[in-house]
Amino acid sequence: MSFTRLRSLIAEKQAPIVVGLDPMPGVLPPGVAVTDFCKSIIDSVCDLVPAVKPQSAYFERLGASGADVLYEVCEHAALRGLYVILDAKRGDIGTTAEAYAEAYLGGGYPADCLTVNPYLGSDGIAPFAELAKAKGKSLFALVKTSNPSSKELQDLITDNGESVYLRVAEMLNANYPTDNVGFVVGATHPAQLRELREKYPDTFFLIPGYGAQGGAASDIEKARDAQGGGYIVNSSRGIIGAWKQAGTTNYGKAAREAVEAMKNELS
Amino acid sequence: MSFTRLRSLIAEKQAPIVVGLDPMPGVLPPGVAVTDFCKSIIDSVCDLVPAVKPQSAYFERLGASGADVLYEVCEHAALRGLYVILDAKRGDIGTTAEAYAEAYLGGGYPADCLTVNPYLGSDGIAPFAELAKAKGKSLFALVKTSNPSSKELQDLITDNGESVYLRVAEMLNANYPTDNVGFVVGATHPAQLRELREKYPDTFFLIPGYGAQGGAASDIEKARDAQGGGYIVNSSRGIIGAWKQAGTTNYGKAAREAVEAMKNELS
Repeated sequence: MSFTRLRSLIAEKQAPIVVGLDPMPGVLPPGVAVTDFCKSIIDSVCDLVPAVKPQSAYFERLGASGADVLYEVCEHAALRGLYVILDAKRGDIGTTAEAYAEAYLGGGYPADCLTVNPYLGSDGIAPFAELAKAKGKSLFALVKTSNPSSKELQDLITDNGESVYLRVAEMLNANYPTDNVGFVVGATHPAQLRELREKYPDTFFLIPGYGAQGGAASDIEKARDAQGGGYIVNSSRGIIGAWKQAGTTNYGKAAREAVEAMKNELS
Repeated sequence: MSFTRLRSLIAEKQAPIVVGLDPMPGVLPPGVAVTDFCKSIIDSVCDLVPAVKPQSAYFERLGASGADVLYEVCEHAALRGLYVILDAKRGDIGTTAEAYAEAYLGGGYPADCLTVNPYLGSDGIAPFAELAKAKGKSLFALVKTSNPSSKELQDLITDNGESVYLRVAEMLNANYPTDNVGFVVGATHPAQLRELREKYPDTFFLIPGYGAQGGAASDIEKARDAQGGGYIVNSSRGIIGAWKQAGTTNYGKAAREAVEAMKNELS
Protein backbone atom coordinates (compact mmCIF):
# COMPACT_ATOMS: atom_id res chain seq x y z
CA MET A 1 0.00 0.00 0.00
CA SER A 2 1.70 2.97 1.35
CA PHE A 3 5.41 2.83 0.59
CA THR A 4 4.41 0.97 -2.56
CA ARG A 5 3.18 4.25 -4.01
CA LEU A 6 6.35 6.05 -2.96
CA ARG A 7 8.48 3.30 -4.50
CA SER A 8 6.49 3.59 -7.75
CA LEU A 9 6.92 7.35 -7.86
CA ILE A 10 10.66 7.01 -7.27
CA ALA A 11 10.90 4.49 -10.10
CA GLU A 12 8.82 6.67 -12.39
CA LYS A 13 10.86 9.81 -11.75
CA GLN A 14 14.13 7.87 -11.52
CA ALA A 15 15.03 10.02 -8.54
CA PRO A 16 15.15 8.85 -4.89
CA ILE A 17 14.91 12.48 -3.84
CA VAL A 18 12.60 14.31 -1.48
CA VAL A 19 12.69 18.08 -1.50
CA GLY A 20 12.61 19.41 2.06
CA LEU A 21 10.38 22.45 2.35
CA ASP A 22 12.04 24.32 5.21
CA PRO A 23 10.95 27.90 4.58
CA MET A 24 13.26 29.51 7.09
CA PRO A 25 13.90 33.25 6.88
CA GLY A 26 17.37 32.74 5.34
CA VAL A 27 16.09 30.92 2.27
CA LEU A 28 13.05 33.06 1.52
CA PRO A 29 13.79 35.61 -1.21
CA PRO A 30 12.98 39.16 -0.09
CA GLY A 31 9.29 39.95 -0.39
CA VAL A 32 8.20 36.39 -1.18
CA ALA A 33 5.56 34.86 1.12
CA VAL A 34 6.02 31.35 2.52
CA THR A 35 2.98 29.96 0.69
CA ASP A 36 4.02 31.39 -2.68
CA PHE A 37 7.60 30.26 -2.21
CA CYS A 38 6.69 26.68 -1.35
CA LYS A 39 4.11 26.40 -4.12
CA SER A 40 6.55 27.75 -6.69
CA ILE A 41 9.23 25.33 -5.56
CA ILE A 42 6.71 22.50 -5.86
CA ASP A 43 5.71 23.59 -9.35
CA SER A 44 9.35 23.87 -10.39
CA VAL A 45 10.37 20.37 -9.28
CA CYS A 46 7.19 18.27 -9.38
CA ASP A 47 8.02 16.54 -12.65
CA LEU A 48 11.51 15.64 -11.38
CA VAL A 49 10.93 14.31 -7.87
CA PRO A 50 8.52 11.89 -6.22
CA ALA A 51 8.07 13.66 -2.90
CA VAL A 52 8.29 16.76 -0.76
CA LYS A 53 8.85 17.03 2.98
CA PRO A 54 7.38 20.15 4.59
CA GLN A 55 9.04 20.81 7.96
CA SER A 56 6.28 21.69 10.39
CA ALA A 57 8.46 23.87 12.63
CA TYR A 58 8.79 26.62 10.01
CA PHE A 59 5.03 26.74 9.59
CA GLU A 60 4.28 26.62 13.32
CA ARG A 61 6.64 29.54 13.67
CA LEU A 62 4.25 31.62 11.56
CA GLY A 63 1.75 31.57 14.41
CA ALA A 64 -1.99 31.26 13.94
CA SER A 65 -1.78 31.25 10.13
CA GLY A 66 0.85 28.51 10.09
CA ALA A 67 -1.53 25.56 10.09
CA ASP A 68 -3.45 27.01 7.15
CA VAL A 69 -0.26 27.68 5.20
CA LEU A 70 1.05 24.17 5.89
CA TYR A 71 -2.24 22.63 4.80
CA GLU A 72 -2.25 24.68 1.62
CA VAL A 73 1.32 23.68 0.79
CA CYS A 74 0.63 19.98 1.45
CA GLU A 75 -2.55 20.17 -0.63
CA HIS A 76 -0.72 21.83 -3.50
CA ALA A 77 1.95 19.13 -3.46
CA ALA A 78 -0.69 16.39 -3.36
CA LEU A 79 -2.49 17.96 -6.32
CA ARG A 80 0.79 17.86 -8.23
CA GLY A 81 0.94 14.11 -7.60
CA LEU A 82 3.73 14.25 -5.06
CA TYR A 83 4.05 12.02 -2.00
CA VAL A 84 3.80 14.34 0.99
CA ILE A 85 5.98 13.52 4.00
CA LEU A 86 5.05 15.83 6.84
CA ASP A 87 8.10 16.22 9.06
CA ALA A 88 6.67 16.96 12.48
CA LYS A 89 8.49 14.36 14.63
CA ARG A 90 5.47 13.92 16.85
CA GLY A 91 5.50 11.48 19.73
CA ASP A 92 3.12 10.94 22.61
CA ILE A 93 1.03 8.15 24.12
CA GLY A 94 -2.53 6.87 24.18
CA THR A 95 -5.30 9.26 23.32
CA THR A 96 -2.78 12.07 22.81
CA ALA A 97 -0.93 10.11 20.13
CA GLU A 98 -4.32 9.29 18.61
CA ALA A 99 -5.10 13.01 18.45
CA TYR A 100 -1.79 13.77 16.68
CA ALA A 101 -2.35 10.87 14.31
CA GLU A 102 -5.89 12.02 13.58
CA ALA A 103 -4.63 15.56 12.99
CA TYR A 104 -2.11 14.60 10.29
CA LEU A 105 -2.93 11.10 9.06
CA GLY A 106 -6.69 11.21 9.52
CA GLY A 107 -9.52 11.89 7.13
CA GLY A 108 -8.91 15.08 5.30
CA TYR A 109 -5.28 15.95 5.78
CA PRO A 110 -3.35 16.06 2.51
CA ALA A 111 -0.26 14.23 3.82
CA ASP A 112 0.79 10.66 3.00
CA CYS A 113 3.35 10.19 5.73
CA LEU A 114 4.38 11.61 9.10
CA THR A 115 7.68 11.50 10.96
CA VAL A 116 7.50 10.27 14.57
CA ASN A 117 9.83 10.06 17.57
CA PRO A 118 10.25 6.65 19.28
CA TYR A 119 11.50 7.73 22.72
CA LEU A 120 8.24 6.76 24.43
CA GLY A 121 8.30 3.18 23.12
CA SER A 122 5.71 1.26 21.15
CA ASP A 123 2.80 2.92 23.02
CA GLY A 124 3.96 6.09 21.34
CA ILE A 125 4.07 4.64 17.83
CA ALA A 126 1.09 2.27 17.80
CA PRO A 127 -1.71 4.86 17.42
CA PHE A 128 0.14 6.44 14.48
CA ALA A 129 0.90 3.07 12.88
CA GLU A 130 -2.68 1.85 13.22
CA LEU A 131 -4.18 4.92 11.61
CA ALA A 132 -1.53 4.98 8.90
CA LYS A 133 -2.34 1.38 8.05
CA ALA A 134 -6.09 2.02 8.02
CA LYS A 135 -5.67 5.01 5.72
CA GLY A 136 -2.98 3.55 3.43
CA LYS A 137 -0.48 6.08 4.79
CA SER A 138 2.94 5.71 6.38
CA LEU A 139 5.39 6.79 9.08
CA PHE A 140 9.09 7.34 9.32
CA ALA A 141 10.34 6.83 12.86
CA LEU A 142 13.62 8.37 13.99
CA VAL A 143 16.23 5.63 14.34
CA LYS A 144 19.70 7.17 13.78
CA THR A 145 19.50 10.88 13.15
CA SER A 146 22.01 12.84 11.09
CA ASN A 147 23.16 15.33 13.74
CA PRO A 148 26.49 14.99 15.57
CA SER A 149 24.99 14.64 19.05
CA SER A 150 22.70 11.81 17.91
CA LYS A 151 25.48 9.64 19.34
CA GLU A 152 24.83 10.77 22.91
CA LEU A 153 21.70 8.68 23.26
CA GLN A 154 21.25 6.70 20.05
CA ASP A 155 24.76 5.17 20.07
CA LEU A 156 24.81 4.06 23.69
CA ILE A 157 25.66 0.38 23.84
CA THR A 158 23.09 -1.72 25.67
CA ASP A 159 23.51 -4.91 27.68
CA ASN A 160 23.16 -7.21 24.67
CA GLY A 161 25.98 -5.40 22.89
CA GLU A 162 23.69 -3.52 20.54
CA SER A 163 23.25 0.23 20.29
CA VAL A 164 20.09 2.02 21.36
CA TYR A 165 19.26 2.87 17.74
CA LEU A 166 19.42 -0.83 16.84
CA ARG A 167 17.12 -1.68 19.73
CA VAL A 168 14.73 1.00 18.48
CA ALA A 169 14.91 -0.49 14.98
CA GLU A 170 14.15 -3.93 16.44
CA MET A 171 11.17 -2.59 18.40
CA LEU A 172 9.80 -0.97 15.26
CA ASN A 173 10.44 -4.00 13.09
CA ALA A 174 8.89 -6.39 15.61
CA ASN A 175 5.70 -4.38 16.00
CA TYR A 176 4.88 -2.72 12.69
CA PRO A 177 4.73 -3.74 9.05
CA THR A 178 7.62 -2.55 6.89
CA ASP A 179 5.11 -1.32 4.38
CA ASN A 180 3.83 1.37 6.75
CA VAL A 181 6.70 2.16 9.08
CA GLY A 182 10.12 3.19 7.79
CA PHE A 183 13.28 4.42 9.50
CA VAL A 184 15.01 7.79 9.50
CA VAL A 185 18.76 7.18 9.14
CA GLY A 186 21.21 10.02 8.48
CA ALA A 187 23.45 10.09 5.41
CA THR A 188 26.15 11.23 7.80
CA HIS A 189 26.34 7.67 9.21
CA PRO A 190 27.24 5.36 6.31
CA ALA A 191 28.32 2.46 8.54
CA GLN A 192 24.97 2.56 10.30
CA LEU A 193 23.14 2.80 6.97
CA ARG A 194 24.88 -0.39 5.88
CA GLU A 195 24.26 -2.14 9.21
CA LEU A 196 20.57 -1.26 9.23
CA ARG A 197 20.15 -2.27 5.59
CA GLU A 198 21.77 -5.65 6.28
CA LYS A 199 19.48 -6.29 9.23
CA TYR A 200 16.36 -4.84 7.64
CA PRO A 201 16.46 -5.65 3.94
CA ASP A 202 12.81 -4.66 3.37
CA THR A 203 12.55 -1.49 5.41
CA PHE A 204 12.20 1.84 3.67
CA PHE A 205 14.65 4.57 4.78
CA LEU A 206 14.27 8.32 4.82
CA ILE A 207 17.80 9.71 4.65
CA PRO A 208 18.47 13.26 5.83
CA GLY A 209 21.90 14.87 6.12
CA TYR A 210 22.86 14.83 2.46
CA GLY A 211 24.88 17.79 1.20
CA ALA A 212 25.16 20.64 3.71
CA GLN A 213 25.43 18.24 6.68
CA GLY A 214 28.14 16.20 4.96
CA GLY A 215 26.48 13.06 3.58
CA ALA A 216 27.71 12.09 0.10
CA ALA A 217 26.35 9.89 -2.69
CA SER A 218 28.90 7.19 -1.83
CA ASP A 219 27.51 7.09 1.71
CA ILE A 220 23.97 6.65 0.51
CA GLU A 221 24.85 3.65 -1.63
CA LYS A 222 25.09 1.73 1.64
CA ALA A 223 21.33 2.02 2.03
CA ARG A 224 20.48 0.21 -1.21
CA ASP A 225 18.28 -2.83 -0.90
CA ALA A 226 18.53 -5.93 -3.11
CA GLN A 227 16.57 -4.14 -5.84
CA GLY A 228 18.85 -1.10 -5.69
CA GLY A 229 16.27 1.09 -3.95
CA GLY A 230 14.46 1.18 -0.63
CA TYR A 231 15.27 4.74 0.37
CA ILE A 232 14.68 8.39 -0.33
CA VAL A 233 17.23 11.13 0.28
CA ASN A 234 16.20 14.51 1.61
CA SER A 235 17.73 17.80 0.59
CA SER A 236 16.29 21.04 1.92
CA ARG A 237 18.53 24.09 1.78
CA GLY A 238 20.62 22.59 -1.00
CA ILE A 239 17.54 22.81 -3.24
CA ILE A 240 15.23 25.51 -1.94
CA GLY A 241 18.16 27.79 -1.08
CA ALA A 242 20.09 27.07 -4.29
CA TRP A 243 19.12 30.48 -5.68
CA LYS A 244 21.46 32.12 -3.19
CA GLN A 245 24.52 30.19 -4.34
CA ALA A 246 23.46 30.61 -7.96
CA GLY A 247 23.31 34.37 -7.57
CA THR A 248 19.79 34.62 -8.98
CA THR A 249 16.36 35.45 -7.66
CA ASN A 250 14.82 32.82 -9.92
CA TYR A 251 14.57 30.35 -7.06
CA GLY A 252 12.41 27.90 -8.96
CA LYS A 253 14.93 27.52 -11.76
CA ALA A 254 17.81 27.26 -9.27
CA ALA A 255 15.90 24.59 -7.32
CA ARG A 256 15.29 22.65 -10.51
CA GLU A 257 18.96 22.76 -11.44
CA ALA A 258 19.94 21.69 -7.93
CA VAL A 259 17.58 18.69 -8.16
CA GLU A 260 19.06 17.71 -11.51
CA ALA A 261 22.59 17.96 -10.11
CA MET A 262 21.61 15.87 -7.08
CA LYS A 263 19.96 13.30 -9.32
CA ASN A 264 23.20 13.00 -11.30
CA GLU A 265 25.28 12.67 -8.15
CA LEU A 266 23.06 9.95 -6.75
CA SER A 267 22.87 7.89 -9.93
CA MET B 1 14.44 32.76 37.18
CA SER B 2 12.15 30.40 35.54
CA PHE B 3 11.33 27.53 37.85
CA THR B 4 11.70 30.05 40.67
CA ARG B 5 8.36 31.54 39.68
CA LEU B 6 6.75 28.10 39.48
CA ARG B 7 8.14 27.20 42.90
CA SER B 8 6.73 30.44 44.33
CA LEU B 9 3.31 29.80 42.84
CA ILE B 10 3.29 26.26 44.24
CA ALA B 11 4.19 27.60 47.70
CA GLU B 12 1.57 30.32 47.47
CA LYS B 13 -1.24 27.96 46.44
CA GLN B 14 0.07 25.15 48.64
CA ALA B 15 -0.62 22.78 45.76
CA PRO B 16 2.03 21.06 43.59
CA ILE B 17 -0.65 20.47 40.98
CA VAL B 18 -0.83 21.26 37.29
CA VAL B 19 -4.17 20.86 35.56
CA GLY B 20 -3.73 19.14 32.20
CA LEU B 21 -5.92 20.72 29.55
CA ASP B 22 -6.54 17.76 27.24
CA PRO B 23 -9.81 18.72 25.56
CA MET B 24 -10.47 15.38 23.94
CA PRO B 25 -13.94 14.60 22.64
CA GLY B 26 -14.73 12.31 25.60
CA VAL B 27 -14.29 15.02 28.22
CA LEU B 28 -16.05 17.89 26.43
CA PRO B 29 -19.62 18.29 27.63
CA PRO B 30 -22.12 18.19 24.76
CA GLY B 31 -22.37 21.50 22.95
CA VAL B 32 -19.41 23.14 24.72
CA ALA B 33 -16.63 24.51 22.51
CA VAL B 34 -12.99 23.75 23.29
CA THR B 35 -12.12 27.39 23.97
CA ASP B 36 -15.04 27.93 26.34
CA PHE B 37 -14.40 24.64 28.11
CA CYS B 38 -10.72 25.35 28.73
CA LYS B 39 -11.32 28.94 29.81
CA SER B 40 -14.06 27.90 32.23
CA ILE B 41 -11.84 25.20 33.71
CA ILE B 42 -9.08 27.79 34.14
CA ASP B 43 -11.46 30.22 35.83
CA SER B 44 -12.73 27.48 38.12
CA VAL B 45 -9.32 26.36 39.38
CA CYS B 46 -7.02 29.37 39.01
CA ASP B 47 -7.09 30.32 42.68
CA LEU B 48 -6.29 26.74 43.71
CA VAL B 49 -3.43 25.70 41.40
CA PRO B 50 -0.20 27.26 40.18
CA ALA B 51 -0.20 25.95 36.62
CA VAL B 52 -2.00 24.49 33.65
CA LYS B 53 -0.63 22.22 30.93
CA PRO B 54 -2.42 22.49 27.58
CA GLN B 55 -1.74 19.41 25.46
CA SER B 56 -0.99 20.61 21.95
CA ALA B 57 -2.26 17.47 20.20
CA TYR B 58 -5.89 18.17 21.04
CA PHE B 59 -5.61 21.67 19.63
CA GLU B 60 -3.70 20.59 16.51
CA ARG B 61 -6.49 18.10 15.93
CA LEU B 62 -8.89 21.02 15.48
CA GLY B 63 -7.17 21.87 12.21
CA ALA B 64 -6.54 25.42 11.04
CA SER B 65 -8.27 27.02 14.05
CA GLY B 66 -6.28 24.96 16.54
CA ALA B 67 -3.31 27.29 16.86
CA ASP B 68 -5.62 30.23 17.55
CA VAL B 69 -7.57 28.29 20.15
CA LEU B 70 -4.38 27.11 21.85
CA TYR B 71 -3.00 30.65 21.92
CA GLU B 72 -6.23 31.99 23.38
CA VAL B 73 -6.28 29.30 26.08
CA CYS B 74 -2.62 29.93 27.00
CA GLU B 75 -3.23 33.67 27.07
CA HIS B 76 -6.27 33.27 29.29
CA ALA B 77 -4.29 31.12 31.73
CA ALA B 78 -1.43 33.62 31.76
CA LEU B 79 -3.87 36.47 32.46
CA ARG B 80 -5.14 34.49 35.44
CA GLY B 81 -1.59 34.38 36.78
CA LEU B 82 -1.01 30.72 36.04
CA TYR B 83 2.28 29.20 34.90
CA VAL B 84 1.62 27.81 31.42
CA ILE B 85 3.36 24.56 30.51
CA LEU B 86 2.75 23.85 26.84
CA ASP B 87 2.92 20.09 26.35
CA ALA B 88 4.04 19.69 22.74
CA LYS B 89 7.01 17.29 23.17
CA ARG B 90 8.87 18.96 20.33
CA GLY B 91 12.30 17.78 19.28
CA ASP B 92 14.44 18.56 16.27
CA ILE B 93 17.89 19.92 15.49
CA GLY B 94 19.62 23.12 14.45
CA THR B 95 17.55 25.76 12.74
CA THR B 96 14.46 23.56 12.94
CA ALA B 97 14.70 23.34 16.72
CA GLU B 98 15.27 27.11 16.74
CA ALA B 99 12.04 27.55 14.77
CA TYR B 100 10.07 25.42 17.24
CA ALA B 101 11.64 27.26 20.17
CA GLU B 102 10.85 30.63 18.59
CA ALA B 103 7.27 29.49 17.94
CA TYR B 104 6.51 28.63 21.56
CA LEU B 105 9.17 30.21 23.77
CA GLY B 106 9.86 33.30 21.69
CA GLY B 107 8.63 36.84 21.88
CA GLY B 108 4.91 36.91 22.08
CA TYR B 109 3.80 33.43 22.94
CA PRO B 110 1.92 33.24 26.26
CA ALA B 111 3.63 30.07 27.50
CA ASP B 112 6.24 29.84 30.27
CA CYS B 113 7.48 26.35 29.57
CA LEU B 114 7.58 23.73 26.80
CA THR B 115 8.00 19.96 26.94
CA VAL B 116 10.73 18.52 24.68
CA ASN B 117 11.90 15.09 23.55
CA PRO B 118 15.59 14.21 24.05
CA TYR B 119 16.01 11.39 21.47
CA LEU B 120 18.14 13.55 19.15
CA GLY B 121 20.68 14.40 21.87
CA SER B 122 21.89 17.77 23.09
CA ASP B 123 21.72 19.30 19.56
CA GLY B 124 17.99 18.81 19.90
CA ILE B 125 17.69 20.48 23.30
CA ALA B 126 20.23 23.31 23.09
CA PRO B 127 18.22 25.73 20.91
CA PHE B 128 15.22 25.37 23.22
CA ALA B 129 17.33 25.72 26.37
CA GLU B 130 19.11 28.80 25.07
CA LEU B 131 15.94 30.64 24.17
CA ALA B 132 14.24 29.56 27.40
CA LYS B 133 17.14 30.98 29.38
CA ALA B 134 17.17 34.22 27.41
CA LYS B 135 13.44 34.70 27.94
CA GLY B 136 13.26 33.53 31.58
CA LYS B 137 11.26 30.48 30.49
CA SER B 138 11.78 26.77 30.99
CA LEU B 139 11.65 23.26 29.53
CA PHE B 140 10.69 19.85 30.76
CA ALA B 141 12.54 17.12 28.88
CA LEU B 142 11.17 13.59 28.78
CA VAL B 143 13.33 11.35 30.97
CA LYS B 144 11.20 8.44 32.24
CA THR B 145 7.68 8.61 30.88
CA SER B 146 4.63 7.20 32.65
CA ASN B 147 3.45 4.74 29.98
CA PRO B 148 4.04 0.97 30.25
CA SER B 149 6.15 0.70 27.09
CA SER B 150 8.49 3.47 28.26
CA LYS B 151 10.60 0.53 29.45
CA GLU B 152 11.32 -0.65 25.90
CA LEU B 153 13.80 2.11 25.21
CA GLN B 154 14.18 4.17 28.37
CA ASP B 155 14.96 1.21 30.67
CA LEU B 156 17.57 -0.44 28.45
CA ILE B 157 20.74 -0.96 30.44
CA THR B 158 23.82 0.61 28.90
CA ASP B 159 27.45 -0.42 29.06
CA ASN B 160 28.20 1.47 32.25
CA GLY B 161 25.36 -0.33 34.03
CA GLU B 162 23.01 2.63 33.89
CA SER B 163 19.66 2.82 32.13
CA VAL B 164 19.05 4.95 29.05
CA TYR B 165 16.81 7.32 31.03
CA LEU B 166 19.63 7.90 33.53
CA ARG B 167 22.04 8.65 30.69
CA VAL B 168 19.50 11.12 29.30
CA ALA B 169 19.21 12.71 32.74
CA GLU B 170 23.01 12.98 32.91
CA MET B 171 23.18 14.57 29.45
CA LEU B 172 20.56 17.12 30.45
CA ASN B 173 22.15 17.82 33.81
CA ALA B 174 25.63 18.20 32.32
CA ASN B 175 24.54 20.65 29.65
CA TYR B 176 21.73 22.79 31.01
CA PRO B 177 21.01 24.70 34.20
CA THR B 178 18.54 23.07 36.58
CA ASP B 179 16.72 26.35 36.79
CA ASN B 180 15.62 26.16 33.15
CA VAL B 181 15.51 22.47 32.30
CA GLY B 182 13.50 19.99 34.34
CA PHE B 183 12.68 16.31 33.88
CA VAL B 184 9.45 14.51 33.08
CA VAL B 185 9.24 11.44 35.32
CA GLY B 186 6.06 9.36 35.60
CA ALA B 187 4.27 8.82 38.92
CA THR B 188 3.91 5.22 37.77
CA HIS B 189 7.65 4.71 38.45
CA PRO B 190 8.23 5.47 42.16
CA ALA B 191 11.61 3.69 42.29
CA GLN B 192 12.85 5.82 39.40
CA LEU B 193 11.44 8.96 40.99
CA ARG B 194 13.45 8.21 44.10
CA GLU B 195 16.59 7.32 42.12
CA LEU B 196 16.41 10.50 40.03
CA ARG B 197 15.74 12.66 43.10
CA GLU B 198 18.75 11.18 44.87
CA LYS B 199 21.00 11.87 41.90
CA TYR B 200 19.52 15.24 41.03
CA PRO B 201 18.54 16.96 44.26
CA ASP B 202 18.00 20.36 42.61
CA THR B 203 16.16 19.36 39.43
CA PHE B 204 12.51 20.22 39.03
CA PHE B 205 10.23 17.32 38.01
CA LEU B 206 7.00 17.33 36.05
CA ILE B 207 5.15 14.18 37.13
CA PRO B 208 2.44 12.76 34.87
CA GLY B 209 0.64 9.46 35.43
CA TYR B 210 -1.14 10.35 38.67
CA GLY B 211 -4.63 8.90 39.14
CA ALA B 212 -6.05 7.24 36.03
CA GLN B 213 -2.64 5.81 35.03
CA GLY B 214 -2.06 4.40 38.52
CA GLY B 215 0.37 6.76 40.27
CA ALA B 216 -0.54 7.39 43.93
CA ALA B 217 0.37 10.08 46.45
CA SER B 218 2.71 7.66 48.22
CA ASP B 219 4.61 7.24 44.94
CA ILE B 220 5.00 10.95 44.48
CA GLU B 221 6.55 11.44 47.91
CA LYS B 222 9.67 9.83 46.42
CA ALA B 223 10.17 12.93 44.32
CA ARG B 224 10.46 15.36 47.24
CA ASP B 225 13.61 17.41 47.46
CA ALA B 226 15.30 18.48 50.70
CA GLN B 227 12.80 21.32 51.04
CA GLY B 228 9.84 19.00 50.52
CA GLY B 229 9.11 20.28 47.01
CA GLY B 230 10.79 20.30 43.64
CA TYR B 231 8.00 18.83 41.57
CA ILE B 232 4.56 19.38 40.13
CA VAL B 233 2.03 16.62 39.53
CA ASN B 234 -0.19 16.62 36.47
CA SER B 235 -3.77 15.47 36.38
CA SER B 236 -5.81 15.84 33.21
CA ARG B 237 -8.92 13.68 32.88
CA GLY B 238 -9.18 13.27 36.65
CA ILE B 239 -9.87 17.01 36.87
CA ILE B 240 -11.31 18.21 33.57
CA GLY B 241 -13.40 15.05 33.17
CA ALA B 242 -14.50 14.92 36.82
CA TRP B 243 -17.98 16.13 35.85
CA LYS B 244 -18.67 12.76 34.24
CA GLN B 245 -17.98 10.78 37.41
CA ALA B 246 -19.80 13.38 39.48
CA GLY B 247 -22.91 13.02 37.35
CA THR B 248 -23.21 16.76 36.72
CA THR B 249 -22.81 19.09 33.77
CA ASN B 250 -21.26 21.72 36.03
CA TYR B 251 -17.78 20.79 34.90
CA GLY B 252 -16.13 23.79 36.52
CA LYS B 253 -17.45 22.90 39.97
CA ALA B 254 -16.54 19.24 39.48
CA ALA B 255 -13.00 20.23 38.39
CA ARG B 256 -12.63 22.42 41.46
CA GLU B 257 -13.73 19.63 43.76
CA ALA B 258 -11.37 17.20 42.05
CA VAL B 259 -8.46 19.64 42.56
CA GLU B 260 -9.36 19.98 46.23
CA ALA B 261 -9.49 16.21 46.64
CA MET B 262 -6.13 15.82 44.86
CA LYS B 263 -4.61 18.53 47.04
CA ASN B 264 -5.76 16.65 50.15
CA GLU B 265 -4.40 13.37 48.84
CA LEU B 266 -1.00 14.87 48.05
CA SER B 267 -0.59 16.70 51.34
